[in-house]
Amino acid sequence: MADKDAARLQIVRAQDPSIATLDDAFEIPKREDVDIVVELIGGVKVAERLVRAALEGKKHVVTANKALLAERGKALFELAERNGCDLYFEAAVAGAIPVIRVIRESLASDYFQSVRGIINGPSNYILSSMANDDATFADALKAAQEAGFAEADPTLDITGGDAGHKLALIAGLAFGAHVLPSQIPTEGIDEVDPRDIQYAHRFGYVIRPLAVAERVESGALDLRVHPALVPESDPLAHVDGALNAVAIKGAMVGPSFLSGLGAGAAPTATSVAGDIIDIARNMLAGAPMRTWYLPVEGDQMLQPIADLSSRYYLRFSVHDEPGVLAALSGALGDAGISIELMVQDVNGGDDGTATIAMLTHDSREGDVRAALRAIDDTHHATAPTRVIRIVE
Amino acid sequence: MADKDAARLQIVRAQDPSIATLDDAFEIPKREDVDIVVELIGGVKVAERLVRAALEGKKHVVTANKALLAERGKALFELAERNGCDLYFEAAVAGAIPVIRVIRESLASDYFQSVRGIINGPSNYILSSMANDDATFADALKAAQEAGFAEADPTLDITGGDAGHKLALIAGLAFGAHVLPSQIPTEGIDEVDPRDIQYAHRFGYVIRPLAVAERVESGALDLRVHPALVPESDPLAHVDGALNAVAIKGAMVGPSFLSGLGAGAAPTATSVAGDIIDIARNMLAGAPMRTWYLPVEGDQMLQPIADLSSRYYLRFSVHDEPGVLAALSGALGDAGISIELMVQDVNGGDDGTATIAMLTHDSREGDVRAALRAIDDTHHATAPTRVIRIVE
Repeated sequence: MADKDAARLQIVRAQDPSIATLDDAFEIPKREDVDIVVELIGGVKVAERLVRAALEGKKHVVTANKALLAERGKALFELAERNGCDLYFEAAVAGAIPVIRVIRESLASDYFQSVRGIINGPSNYILSSMANDDATFADALKAAQEAGFAEADPTLDITGGDAGHKLALIAGLAFGAHVLPSQIPTEGIDEVDPRDIQYAHRFGYVIRPLAVAERVESGALDLRVHPALVPESDPLAHVDGALNAVAIKGAMVGPSFLSGLGAGAAPTATSVAGDIIDIARNMLAGAPMRTWYLPVEGDQMLQPIADLSSRYYLRFSVHDEPGVLAALSGALGDAGISIELMVQDVNGGDDGTATIAMLTHDSREGDVRAALRAIDDTHHATAPTRVIRIVE
Repeated sequence: MADKDAARLQIVRAQDPSIATLDDAFEIPKREDVDIVVELIGGVKVAERLVRAALEGKKHVVTANKALLAERGKALFELAERNGCDLYFEAAVAGAIPVIRVIRESLASDYFQSVRGIINGPSNYILSSMANDDATFADALKAAQEAGFAEADPTLDITGGDAGHKLALIAGLAFGAHVLPSQIPTEGIDEVDPRDIQYAHRFGYVIRPLAVAERVESGALDLRVHPALVPESDPLAHVDGALNAVAIKGAMVGPSFLSGLGAGAAPTATSVAGDIIDIARNMLAGAPMRTWYLPVEGDQMLQPIADLSSRYYLRFSVHDEPGVLAALSGALGDAGISIELMVQDVNGGDDGTATIAMLTHDSREGDVRAALRAIDDTHHATAPTRVIRIVE
């Protein structure tokens, strides 16, 4: 093994002198006595060089690197195929949950309708503690960092970028789509306000950080990453803290649900070890590339987010004055958006403002956004309206 | 394909004349153009003959037959090995849930601490409708039969026998134990009374039909099938109706949870098709027996049920007279059983009886049973005390 951190190598040497420790990771793929290279560096640049070197040296590869595969997967899988090598990546999506193996082996015969997941641990941990401890986003983030559940630089997690990488991999496996993370509409959890969590609760929902891949009626693929209202009766609503979960719906298999720890050394190591054992079984059987990464059918039509049909949670900040609700509902009605549930609260303090929260019936996202832009421009609004999609 | 039911063969022939239909299933393993024999007969006798004929003819086998594998698995896996054949059985446990593949591939590196599951669909359907519709066991069974969720002869399901077959397979896969169903302490759901469901609810629990395999401190294996009180916060508590679920705890992976449909033509077919695809991948790679049924470590020490340490739900039927509660708690206390929660209700009507329901702290099952036998023999008792184990 190799590690940039010399102290860590020292510990390994002390524990087991039979493990060869190297200062330079690029020496590993050059060694004759190495069959499988495990890449756990993270990031794209150095990791890509190492994985390329390994595959070109005809070494099988196990990686937990979602960014690498989401950005450069196509070329790397082609390289692996040319060299007759396995490239396994169970730990790259949802940590200990065997979602890759389930999609490409257990459910290999099925036609996938949707895959929905809580696949970013830090985001779920933060939203869970906002709900359980009634904390602000900033306080919950700080607590998550102190507890080791969020990185010092949490950007990739809280903006949805990490979930986007994983969703791109899921879209390839479940729907044969070659999608880059930049093509996926992505919203982070950093805009979620404790008030949204409270209103969601009053309506019977919880807010979860979701990644959604769904084949819609037009045949297009609906891909998105965002915080969502989930009904309290949904299994995803009970996935708390650092747990991840994936809910798969197949034409034949029906609803299939998997949950487990999404991160952490031991759960990740279990997935990596499962891949190593799988490749070793292939090697013993003289059968590399036995289960291949599903062939990507090529570029698929992605549904523009404006065309999404969904129910929405809306929270309006308005002046507390006669006619406001009539104006809001009029504007929404004119845009074809119908309200299912509504609650109006006069805010505390003397500023004469009110909050109106509502759930809509199914509406087209483009229409919702246009109506809200118009409403936010009126003299009624005191702040931009918050919108959170409902997933059920 | 072959089917005893000539009408069904007629339908297949009409839909697709290219499918060869045979009146005699035993012709199938004799055919040169057959590589994989799929056995979906059920039962032990005929199925065993067919599977043996297939393996002796060097055909790979896919089966959904838990009874066959639980009773005759050891000999059949040995026969498969001698003939260089795969014998796959994903559909035999928990229908569409890929529990076999997850245990022997995804979590292959882990040390299993416990596997707990709702693995009998009819039982869960019946207990769910007893809770949701406030129905008696007999009415709920009848409704389940009318809805097609229970067989005309439901004995094997409601007595726990079916779950015992599946648990024997799980014990082999997860713990390397060679266990026959007859060695597993088994209780059916037919003794569950609506009052037990109501008291469980008052204590914050639901009653689920569980199968439990657990490595206990002594190193022995604790295997059992019975209805159990499960805390409402447990993921298993949310597995309703015909859904099955398996909760795995591993030393490294932590808690892992899988749920999905446990029965039905399409979900079962998905698991069977996944196995066929897996074997086909082995054949294409020239690598039969690539992932082998884990070697059974031989007979393992099974924990006698009397030595189980558990919390218990107890429901006493007693005469409503002074001193009853003191007598009960005295008898329990003398046996070292301590009470955590208690509720006493005077029964309606003029018969002067009362019900006392309680949850105990951790107790040894043998002590609990002995204390209850003594209590049931006193003049206080009007009916035998109901005992249900708590699993959390």
